[in-house]
Amino acid sequence: MVDILHRVGVQNAAPDDVYDALTTLDGLRGWWASDTSGSVELGGVIEFRFGPGGIDMRVIELDRPNRVVWEVVGGPAEWIGTTVTWRLSTAGDYTIVLFSHAGWAEPVEFMYHCSTKWAVFLLSLKALVETGAGSPDPRDLRISDWH
Amino acid sequence: MVDILHRVGVQNAAPDDVYDALTTLDGLRGWWASDTSGSVELGGVIEFRFGPGGIDMRVIELDRPNRVVWEVVGGPAEWIGTTVTWRLSTAGDYTIVLFSHAGWAEPVEFMYHCSTKWAVFLLSLKALVETGAGSPDPRDLRISDWH
Repeated sequence: MVDILHRVGVQNAAPDDVYDALTTLDGLRGWWASDTSGSVELGGVIEFRFGPGGIDMRVIELDRPNRVVWEVVGGPAEWIGTTVTWRLSTAGDYTIVLFSHAGWAEPVEFMYHCSTKWAVFLLSLKALVETGAGSPDPRDLRISDWH
Repeated sequence: MVDILHRVGVQNAAPDDVYDALTTLDGLRGWWASDTSGSVELGGVIEFRFGPGGIDMRVIELDRPNRVVWEVVGGPAEWIGTTVTWRLSTAGDYTIVLFSHAGWAEPVEFMYHCSTKWAVFLLSLKALVETGAGSPDPRDLRISDWH
């Protein structure tokens, strides 16, 4: 089992601000997928759509403003059953975001891609909360032939 | 043991172009640390300096234009003895870069930070080879309170 890990700091923002961007449809549409729908409540399934494909996340933990956990219930085969965890804390004038996408069976090449792509989307989340404008799909930064 | 993994594609570039950016002082200065010196030959030690600190990498494998491996021989305690591996291949008009920073003893918070920061520097490498201009330290993108 191998994990993708990331850390960013969102400046001049409270954990509640980042928490909102992770737990509302408007927030999620602002940094990850413009086409996001579904239920953001505990036990609900959020549907993220990216051009040809999509990812469905079940919300399995909500602890404002500290922690959000999603379980992948739809999407690429390698993602099914993995979990995405967001941990928020404060350091000076930053909200620190500790991110993990855990439970990959194998470090396949697709995992390398997803690791870099998550970094790009975390920087989009940071920009959204700091400036009001993120870069969600389909305006996300292209990093390779795999998009 | 846990690893940092990333994948980017450098468009309209040959593997040799990316290999040069990884194996010459001018190349390394163009995307990672402006203050880079030392020996880039097999067995040599490259000295990367970032403001207050630095990282020393011993070049332990050079296989043009496919593969470069460094061993960390100086720098943050968590980095000592870890290895950084670059694998290059071709896909259409892209050179694909598979990156790993492997052998971390524990997934400490600093590893989360380094994972995101490596993504930023890989995008700097991509920009350098594609456009001639990367964003090396000290002009790198700041991602948090930890820089």
